[in-house]
Amino acid sequence: MLDHGFLTRAKVYFFDLDGCVYHGDQLSPGIIPLLGRLRQLGIDYAFLTNNSRLSAAEIGGRLAGMGLEVAPECILPVTDIAGRFIRDKYGAVTVKTIGSESLERGISAAGHRTVSWDEGKADIVVVGRDTAFHYDKLQQISSDILSGARLVATNPDIYHPGADGIKIPETGALLASIEAMTGTTAECIGKPEPYMFLYGMKLYDAAPDSCVMVGDNPDTDILGSARAGLKSVWITNGAPADSSVWKREPGQILSCPDVVLNNMEELYRLVGGF
Amino acid sequence: MLDHGFLTRAKVYFFDLDGCVYHGDQLSPGIIPLLGRLRQLGIDYAFLTNNSRLSAAEIGGRLAGMGLEVAPECILPVTDIAGRFIRDKYGAVTVKTIGSESLERGISAAGHRTVSWDEGKADIVVVGRDTAFHYDKLQQISSDILSGARLVATNPDIYHPGADGIKIPETGALLASIEAMTGTTAECIGKPEPYMFLYGMKLYDAAPDSCVMVGDNPDTDILGSARAGLKSVWITNGAPADSSVWKREPGQILSCPDVVLNNMEELYRLVGGF
Repeated sequence: MLDHGFLTRAKVYFFDLDGCVYHGDQLSPGIIPLLGRLRQLGIDYAFLTNNSRLSAAEIGGRLAGMGLEVAPECILPVTDIAGRFIRDKYGAVTVKTIGSESLERGISAAGHRTVSWDEGKADIVVVGRDTAFHYDKLQQISSDILSGARLVATNPDIYHPGADGIKIPETGALLASIEAMTGTTAECIGKPEPYMFLYGMKLYDAAPDSCVMVGDNPDTDILGSARAGLKSVWITNGAPADSSVWKREPGQILSCPDVVLNNMEELYRLVGGF
Repeated sequence: MLDHGFLTRAKVYFFDLDGCVYHGDQLSPGIIPLLGRLRQLGIDYAFLTNNSRLSAAEIGGRLAGMGLEVAPECILPVTDIAGRFIRDKYGAVTVKTIGSESLERGISAAGHRTVSWDEGKADIVVVGRDTAFHYDKLQQISSDILSGARLVATNPDIYHPGADGIKIPETGALLASIEAMTGTTAECIGKPEPYMFLYGMKLYDAAPDSCVMVGDNPDTDILGSARAGLKSVWITNGAPADSSVWKREPGQILSCPDVVLNNMEELYRLVGGF
């Protein structure tokens, strides 16, 4: 029997949202009783998401619409954190934002000057999921980067799951073109990079091994947890839990979840001891 | 002294166009006397280009505007050849074209049924340089490919040189996103793949070693020549002629030009024996 004791001894749970807490517009069965159980146990929880289009307030509204009330300060999307990451690392700079209005607002709120994609020079080009991405924008920002602007991406995800199993292009799909054009690799803020994990742990004053990350994406949630030293639960949603998923380099396993479960109801039963 | 005799013993010269025969809207100095010299020597010439936006007739018009009159049948752009490549390999099929109107016309002319990007199902999605490429198109064609459509690209070039040294996104930059989304690799028609070289050699009934390819792009013109068995001349345009350019695999040189020259005038002098 594996030791699942850490699941009830944890200080904080971090949950990924899309494909984990909800699918499409439906909450995952089990998530509401699970959160209630965590509260009974005195365990905090928060939501750590690579969503680069919605602010915490907007995500809170969406969750409420599905029937889950969450305090906005527990929702930590890269949209709201990107500006702070840039300020911590580079100071207050001029930023060209390729993405949503929420992302641009978040970056402005952190004290940066923002310029639109087709005008002005920027110190940093931040790329998020941009549903208005097009050829001319690719050319302009590639030229900016080749002229010295730094390339930062909210997250490396290539797609996220949409309705009917359709793959919705994410930031990483757009980055593929930009990186090909410029011969550079973006610096990523979101999972699996450590920044958001560190941000979350600081917020709750929690040591890595007292935190549990629950996510559905091996490439971001689980790899990032392993790098940052958090325990992790992989929700497979029925995907084959093939150990080859974890082999990132020949012969070397770089990340491995502590627990593999099909869905949130299984996690609820495990935490509840049922 | 290297043996340059093949330069005057050749049966056919193939020239790349952009960055080779012309730069921007200016013919390269030396190209007109060079072509005259080849004619004197009884050597044929033709133009082999990965341009996926202009037909032979349109390119002929552009060259004439710069002062170079060329018979349209000597201009072999991938735009006009793509439909034939697909017919030779897959028969007459339904094709979704992501690119220029000329590319779509060329594909129709080869006997295929074409459908627009946002409607219908296609057997093959052909991607060329598409200056109207955008996020929704990326999502739709990725979905088509994941549902079974084959991915074919006119050419793998990531960019081509524009005015003031700006890099203009080419087919390969758009492919980077599509390949990331779909986890597939496109089948490429243009250089460095062999199809266009074979097409040109067949047209002139010429054996590979009686042909000379003159080009400025090591990744397409020179690598393709080496693969297809043609002699090649690399026009560096002043780039460092570093032999590391040719090392495609560790310890293994996969392609190497037969002659390296700075510009077309040097080739004219060499062919003329001046």
